Amino acid sequence: MAASPTASLIVIGNEILSGRTIDANIQFLAAALGKLGIPLVEVRVIPDIEIDIITAVNALRVRTTYVFTTGGIGPTHDDITAASIAKSFGVELARHQSSVEKMERQYGDRLNEARLKMAYLPEGSAPIETRVTSAPGFCIDNVYVMAGVPSIARAMFDVIAPSLARGAPVLSRFVEAHMGEGDLADALTNIQATYPTVDVGSYPFFRSGQIGMSIVAKGTDAAEIDKVISCVEKAINACGKSCSVDKEISS
Amino acid sequence: MAASPTASLIVIGNEILSGRTIDANIQFLAAALGKLGIPLVEVRVIPDIEIDIITAVNALRVRTTYVFTTGGIGPTHDDITAASIAKSFGVELARHQSSVEKMERQYGDRLNEARLKMAYLPEGSAPIETRVTSAPGFCIDNVYVMAGVPSIARAMFDVIAPSLARGAPVLSRFVEAHMGEGDLADALTNIQATYPTVDVGSYPFFRSGQIGMSIVAKGTDAAEIDKVISCVEKAINACGKSCSVDKEISS
Repeated sequence: MAASPTASLIVIGNEILSGRTIDANIQFLAAALGKLGIPLVEVRVIPDIEIDIITAVNALRVRTTYVFTTGGIGPTHDDITAASIAKSFGVELARHQSSVEKMERQYGDRLNEARLKMAYLPEGSAPIETRVTSAPGFCIDNVYVMAGVPSIARAMFDVIAPSLARGAPVLSRFVEAHMGEGDLADALTNIQATYPTVDVGSYPFFRSGQIGMSIVAKGTDAAEIDKVISCVEKAINACGKSCSVDKEISS
Repeated sequence: MAASPTASLIVIGNEILSGRTIDANIQFLAAALGKLGIPLVEVRVIPDIEIDIITAVNALRVRTTYVFTTGGIGPTHDDITAASIAKSFGVELARHQSSVEKMERQYGDRLNEARLKMAYLPEGSAPIETRVTSAPGFCIDNVYVMAGVPSIARAMFDVIAPSLARGAPVLSRFVEAHMGEGDLADALTNIQATYPTVDVGSYPFFRSGQIGMSIVAKGTDAAEIDKVISCVEKAINACGKSCSVDKEISS
């Protein structure tokens, strides 16, 4: 396992790409992984197309410590994630008996071939079982396959989380000021150069018709982050502006 | 220009990957492009890192008719999109004089080197100028580079849209029913097989503690979509369930 784990996320879903549905998993996973010290370094949103799933999984599973996927593990014809991921790894799907038994208990007479499809997992994978549904997600090698429905994805991530190798938690503090980024840019360049272990990000916003900027200091060393925030605050005051400073460091 | 144009989107932003900010551009662009008959076929969210930007731009600009990017074109040290895209194309940045003049009028004495950075565009690119800001986006070959702030991204897209080659608009209708996907899966498989030119998607949901599913029929032929929706409605009724049917076809 790498000393500094990283993660990527593949959102499998035509409904996100058509704009019909707003993704609700990216932000949750990004924040949850950050707290575990596993920065999310890439997200791809791709359609329910086999070759696209295979390509994305095979590209990312060699690039990041962990790959998470959401979507496409239900019972309908457009749920092709398990079969596609089996092909990514060159294995067959195999019936996962304890999931079949859970489904028998949940569905009784209503257990049909379509539902049973959800109990077929790529050979060599381990199920991700939750209390919210009898149909499992699964993990194969470093790829964690979760449902697209946000409440189920969260339940599955809760099951996965304890088994993940953690890095140093990513800490952050921020400052907000009602001023244009251009007036603070030189100062931020200098602050970033002075504190290279802290990631200094500047994000403009419009709120209630007013332009403003958030300056975020992110890293693993709380003392260095505090120094950056103090420098940013001084630089804003030197421009004759006030700012609101995030008092608490958060992970 | 391809007969059936496609699009991809690269969201450049550490703030999305950290979970600090919820992306607000994917859904807007997905829907707006769909209305123009330009399906969005992939989204990547990547950090403000030069090699990641170059890699994503060069991968997608040969795969989709159009590539859109959001984020990283401001005045601060972490705004590296223009310079990275220049490298993707193997060109230098060049000063765009009319943008400089617009900025002089907007900023007056407050025009500094940091803000002037926003007037440097890759050689061979055309500016995307809006009324909401003097700092331009730009287009180079088939890559359209927009701001990350949603209101500015939308203004830039409005400028770009008339110049894009359009395909047949993607039309859709949907049906919702409070039932499990597994009970309708076989019927949907048959309906999809009968109407191969329509994309039949099934999306489960939980609302107010109730399980349900949306079935979406998408395509370019309204009559075929209507036939699919009618079949889906009959199949749901055959399960002894009622459903709500989207009356109007929408693009």
